[in-house]
Formats: sequence, structure tokens, C-alpha cells
Amino acid sequence: MTERSVTHATFTLEQTYDAPPAKVFNAFADPAIKRRWYVEGEGWQVEEFTGEFKVGGYERSRFRFRGGELIRNDTTYHDIVPNERIIFAYTMTIGENRISASLTTFEFKPAGAGTKLICTEQGAFLDGYDNVEAREGGWGHLLEALGRALQS
Amino acid sequence: MTERSVTHATFTLEQTYDAPPAKVFNAFADPAIKRRWYVEGEGWQVEEFTGEFKVGGYERSRFRFRGGELIRNDTTYHDIVPNERIIFAYTMTIGENRISASLTTFEFKPAGAGTKLICTEQGAFLDGYDNVEAREGGWGHLLEALGRALQS
Repeated sequence: MTERSVTHATFTLEQTYDAPPAKVFNAFADPAIKRRWYVEGEGWQVEEFTGEFKVGGYERSRFRFRGGELIRNDTTYHDIVPNERIIFAYTMTIGENRISASLTTFEFKPAGAGTKLICTEQGAFLDGYDNVEAREGGWGHLLEALGRALQS
Repeated sequence: MTERSVTHATFTLEQTYDAPPAKVFNAFADPAIKRRWYVEGEGWQVEEFTGEFKVGGYERSRFRFRGGELIRNDTTYHDIVPNERIIFAYTMTIGENRISASLTTFEFKPAGAGTKLICTEQGAFLDGYDNVEAREGGWGHLLEALGRALQS
């Protein structure tokens, strides 16, 4: 029987991109662009990436790393202000274990001709399966991948 | 045009009830019981209270206080461990304005013959329409109403 525990933690990441807010926002709103930086990458097999980018809409990702256990991301969109803000909640599940539930806010701020992107994640890390340091590192890699997607 | 802002804040409330965890949990899981303590009350008109208590399920509440503006609560359930834990995300909207998005964790811990209920809310309060003090006060009232529902 699983020993239940919840660790709550919040972190904020900021990254500045040489692209206007509308273009950075579009990299979240357009599923073909988002797929490139959000779920694809060397060693990752994407089994599903579907969803509807609207308030109340969901997004489902199913993937594996180098043939490992199935990893599931189940997201629901809670607030969308075009070119300015996205708030979503999501759970991560590895195999049979739900490892986290989080509320994530992205704010898109003009910064000269570019964009300052502020990511705030308020997470509940479950049953010892996950932790905030790993999550913050994961989002750091994603924000770098987003930067590469914006340049291509 | 609305000036956009997000204030992130977390609070925790604890309340002990003279009822076992399974009974307290059931006051969240059974929609007829939940309706009594969660949306009904003197001065409140409930226009809708529907949902499905399951992971991935939603709950919709629509209500007014003394004929005022329509208030909407849109909830999605992210994690349910029977008699032990519930995690959901929800937005509150008053009229046309979405005032918050939150991730809320309830933990049900045995305390003698009763239950210690721990409520942790990780909130994003939007555009100056809401604040963490008001939300913490609101949940405080709800946890008292839950206590009355458990006694009846």
C-alpha cells in the first residue's frame, strides 16, 4: 500500500525571447509548434499529443523516454488571455503512479521588441514520486527548447 | 481594457471533525451532501450544481448572493484517493471577470476516532479582482459549514 504524502512548492522561471509576445503566445496556442518544443526531442517517443487550446479544453500527452514506462500529462486550460496569459492545471503520471498535480501560469510581457516570459508553477508533489527541483529543471529545459522553436 | 496582473499565494487550513475519514470524504464525494455545505446557505440562490466526482471529471456551480451578479465555479478533479486525498483545480468568475484559478488539496488524516482535514490552496488571483485573504476566509466558512453538515 502506498504511503501517501503531498509536498506543496512554488517556483518561478523567467526567460526573455527575441520575438514579440504574439509569436511566443502562438508557440503555445498552435499545436504543431507546441508539439515540437513541448513533447518531441531526442530519445522521446510521442504516442499521443491531442487537445483543444481553449478555456475548459484539455490536452493529453502520452510519451516514453527510450522505451521506458508510459508517461502521461493531463492538462486542463483554466484561463487564456490572448498574447498575455495562459493558466492551466495538469497532472503527471508515470506508469500507474500519479506523481504530481500543478497549476501553472505563463505571463507574456513585452520587453523591447521581444518578450519576457514568466512561468510560475504551484505544485503538489505526490507520495515521494516527484519533487520541485526536478520539475523546475524540466521546465528550464522546455523554455530553452521553446527558444530554439522560436528561431526555426 | 483590463490591466492584467497575477498574484500567487498559498495558504493552509486545518480543521478536526468528530467523524471518521470515510464520512468526511463522503461529504465531498456525495453530491447531495456536498451541495448542502458547499453552495447552499442563507441568501444564496443556486442556479446549477452538477458534476462528476472522478479523476478528469468536472463540477460546475452557478449561484448568486441576494440577487447579485452570477458567480461561477468551474472545477476539474485531478487526483482522488478514496478516504485519503482529493486534489482539484478551479476557477471563480463573477459576471464577465475571471477572478482566480486555484489548485486545492484536501488531505483526510485519522485523528483518534475523528479526522484532521488539511486544506492547502495554491491560488492565482487575477487582475486585482480577488485576493488570498478573502479566499482563506471563504474556505474557513465552508469548513465550518462542513462541520454542521457532518452533524446533521
